[in-house]
Amino acid sequence: MKLSLGDIAEHISAKFYGDSQRQIHAINTLDKASEGEVSFFSNRRYLSALKSTTASAVILSEDDRKHCPVDSLVVDNPYLAYAKLANLLYPDQESIPGIHSSADIHDTATIHPSAQIGAQVSVGKNAMIGEGTVIGAGVIIGDGAIIGRHSRLYPNVVLYKDVVLGDRVKLHSGVIIGADGFGIANENGKWLKIPQVGTVEIGNDVEIGANTTIDRGALGNTIIADGVKIDNQVQVGHNVHIGKDTAVAGCVAIAGSTHIGERCMIGGACGISGHIEIADDVVLMAMSGVNNSIKEAGVYASGLPVMDVKTWRKNVVSFKQLYLLNTRLRRLEDNYTDKED
Amino acid sequence: MKLSLGDIAEHISAKFYGDSQRQIHAINTLDKASEGEVSFFSNRRYLSALKSTTASAVILSEDDRKHCPVDSLVVDNPYLAYAKLANLLYPDQESIPGIHSSADIHDTATIHPSAQIGAQVSVGKNAMIGEGTVIGAGVIIGDGAIIGRHSRLYPNVVLYKDVVLGDRVKLHSGVIIGADGFGIANENGKWLKIPQVGTVEIGNDVEIGANTTIDRGALGNTIIADGVKIDNQVQVGHNVHIGKDTAVAGCVAIAGSTHIGERCMIGGACGISGHIEIADDVVLMAMSGVNNSIKEAGVYASGLPVMDVKTWRKNVVSFKQLYLLNTRLRRLEDNYTDKED
Amino acid sequence: MKLSLGDIAEHISAKFYGDSQRQIHAINTLDKASEGEVSFFSNRRYLSALKSTTASAVILSEDDRKHCPVDSLVVDNPYLAYAKLANLLYPDQESIPGIHSSADIHDTATIHPSAQIGAQVSVGKNAMIGEGTVIGAGVIIGDGAIIGRHSRLYPNVVLYKDVVLGDRVKLHSGVIIGADGFGIANENGKWLKIPQVGTVEIGNDVEIGANTTIDRGALGNTIIADGVKIDNQVQVGHNVHIGKDTAVAGCVAIAGSTHIGERCMIGGACGISGHIEIADDVVLMAMSGVNNSIKEAGVYASGLPVMDVKTWRKNVVSFKQLYLLNTRLRRLEDNYTDKED
Repeated sequence: MKLSLGDIAEHISAKFYGDSQRQIHAINTLDKASEGEVSFFSNRRYLSALKSTTASAVILSEDDRKHCPVDSLVVDNPYLAYAKLANLLYPDQESIPGIHSSADIHDTATIHPSAQIGAQVSVGKNAMIGEGTVIGAGVIIGDGAIIGRHSRLYPNVVLYKDVVLGDRVKLHSGVIIGADGFGIANENGKWLKIPQVGTVEIGNDVEIGANTTIDRGALGNTIIADGVKIDNQVQVGHNVHIGKDTAVAGCVAIAGSTHIGERCMIGGACGISGHIEIADDVVLMAMSGVNNSIKEAGVYASGLPVMDVKTWRKNVVSFKQLYLLNTRLRRLEDNYTDKED
Repeated sequence: MKLSLGDIAEHISAKFYGDSQRQIHAINTLDKASEGEVSFFSNRRYLSALKSTTASAVILSEDDRKHCPVDSLVVDNPYLAYAKLANLLYPDQESIPGIHSSADIHDTATIHPSAQIGAQVSVGKNAMIGEGTVIGAGVIIGDGAIIGRHSRLYPNVVLYKDVVLGDRVKLHSGVIIGADGFGIANENGKWLKIPQVGTVEIGNDVEIGANTTIDRGALGNTIIADGVKIDNQVQVGHNVHIGKDTAVAGCVAIAGSTHIGERCMIGGACGISGHIEIADDVVLMAMSGVNNSIKEAGVYASGLPVMDVKTWRKNVVSFKQLYLLNTRLRRLEDNYTDKED
Repeated sequence: MKLSLGDIAEHISAKFYGDSQRQIHAINTLDKASEGEVSFFSNRRYLSALKSTTASAVILSEDDRKHCPVDSLVVDNPYLAYAKLANLLYPDQESIPGIHSSADIHDTATIHPSAQIGAQVSVGKNAMIGEGTVIGAGVIIGDGAIIGRHSRLYPNVVLYKDVVLGDRVKLHSGVIIGADGFGIANENGKWLKIPQVGTVEIGNDVEIGANTTIDRGALGNTIIADGVKIDNQVQVGHNVHIGKDTAVAGCVAIAGSTHIGERCMIGGACGISGHIEIADDVVLMAMSGVNNSIKEAGVYASGLPVMDVKTWRKNVVSFKQLYLLNTRLRRLEDNYTDKED
């Protein structure tokens, strides 16, 4: 696809400085973009790359235009404008209707004629696949699972029985939806498994990254609301509820029955305990551990940053007796105050 | 399946208060249960839901009966009783004997006639699959692997060659058993891979969650003893030994050659170093890091809880110089004591 | 395979003490090795096992020879010598040329005649598979993906379109290469997905563990350089660059656009933020969190070790007000100094 800079400026509502007839066929990074490519500038770390870019044009904010050696597309939010342009230049591939000969489809399954079913796929009893949906090679769809319209399951996704997906859902390879939650009860030192009889409901416009797992409910359902975006290798326990438009970065673990609000941003590798509530608009910085409910919107953190190992070893020794430090300090304060009197 | 409340009371050894003839067909949560459904109460957070439940009956302890507006099934351990009832109402599906036409089974493999082999399965040379075992779609079973009786491998599980599973083992989708351990030796800055020539032995009544990985031994075997329950996305390194009836929550990482005792409970997202020993009956709270052996039963923890980001930033600055705090305090104490003299 | 101890000594450049004609067929651990087996000693924890070993010979350092009750193979680096011997005794299986009848290969794909393609494999348009490469059962290879020579993809690996792998690459089961990076832009509280139009380039002699995920670049490529070794369940974000001969242990999370140097050793379960640089020869201890660039080689850490839960609870309380401790201490110091004057 080719677009003129003028058309691009209009599409992303940019103020434009330069030659509006120039033809653009791609987006690239500041340091790699060349003739016919647009780039964008939204992170100060790349200022020197901006100053020496050979892109045909750069999307940036008014304040940064002075650093731009080429044509400028000026917007308030360059990253968002880049996202819009990328969607224009690189649209999703449409489904190529048809069922691959090696796929195994149960007689009772309902597959929309416009859907695309890849090689080595297995579709179970009474499963339903909607209009324009693409099922990649090796995907396994359990009995009774329902997939909406214009969704895309990349190769080797597994949906357990009765899982429900909305429209425009993207599941990346290795995603497992609806495996049993970790429900076990202890009887005299032995574990008795608890049948997990709920399922998983995933709303519209949800995207889930590679090898992420979302367990089915023990009783009632695990729910991922509309517009949620989940990165790779995230674990979502049974009966969790993730509210609308929340984003969850990679390697996060969310234990069972926890409710996460809307528009939250959960940083990478966070751990969130079970049976708690996290309010709307909470931001968790990477590697935070949450073991109690968070009742107010805001930014929270708990991770410790790296130190050189010698300092770290000494700090760890002190940390092990941190409460004693507190006690010793108080004693000193008390005595000192006594002397003051 | 339908059961009378009287039958249920007998099955779970409950003291019963109410109409023993009432018919029950399902279990549900306190807030969602209605006519014909039983619920249970074992977590104080849900007390208000108990008080307003419309379940036909609730499993609870004697102390809580006063809050229950409907029929009561009184037991010492309501969660365990719920587990027992759930197993009664929702029994595992039996295998439907037969081999799917799209499965690829090596001539030398031995498959019990009562086993069920799904679509797109691949079974290698000399592999053995026992009585009543169910192999889901897309499962890959390596050469020489042995699976016991009444086990269930959900879709897209992979067993590498020579892996051994016991009876009544459940492996959820995406589980990989027997991949190479991370054995590498350094020679002048380059890594030389060490062939991993052991395998993995998994005992009876083990359940392993989605996308969990258990590596084969470098020399000798990785061993998961009887009754162990492992959640999703757990990583178990080569030559690890997990003792009987230990439970491991999601996203735990266990490095190579570590021995974990019996009846331990490992909280979510813990990290456990290699070549250490953890005693029987150890409980690790979520997100703990263990880098030395734990020799006594007990409860251990190391994670830090979230704070608002401003407090956290200030605390992190102090943490970076924590040992200096200790030194400064000691100096003050020493001087102070001198003055006392 | 059988080798004489004399031949082994020569192969691993060992000084040999014992009967050079003795035949060896296997390697085993110190406690399990018997007649015909060699063991090695490189970790002090196993000293008592050395003293009572019944191996035919042990690879060890000169200093430890005095503890060895059997024949000795003396080298400077016993672990490396064990690695070399293991590669001699347990060579990689060669490919068995041919394409399984159940595999689905696109007409336009190029597969070297010496390559081995397993059951239920799917190979896309214009994909290329090199000489002697083995593709395990259930592997999905996207359109335009290129795999070099003598590589091995274990069952159920997924390569998205256009991914490039070098020679002698090993990908373990469940590895996903080239899924979309987590690129989203926020517009009035909704997330707009950013098309991920780069790919992943993986060099020669790279090994990647089970269920690890490596995302494709947003613009430009994610790059894993020659000789990199990655363990299981590692997450590598879009546009990350991992330098030559770096080793990454299990469950590490690396966020987007971060550059990691050469010969680094990243401990298990570390978290590394996006858009930072880590110098060559950096060692991160397990469970470290890195949120700023590391500019100098060295050893770094940030994890806290477990304590008994009572001590931990008290320390956590103190940690929450750590900066106040610092303030209180300073006040005391200031006052104290005043008095000194």
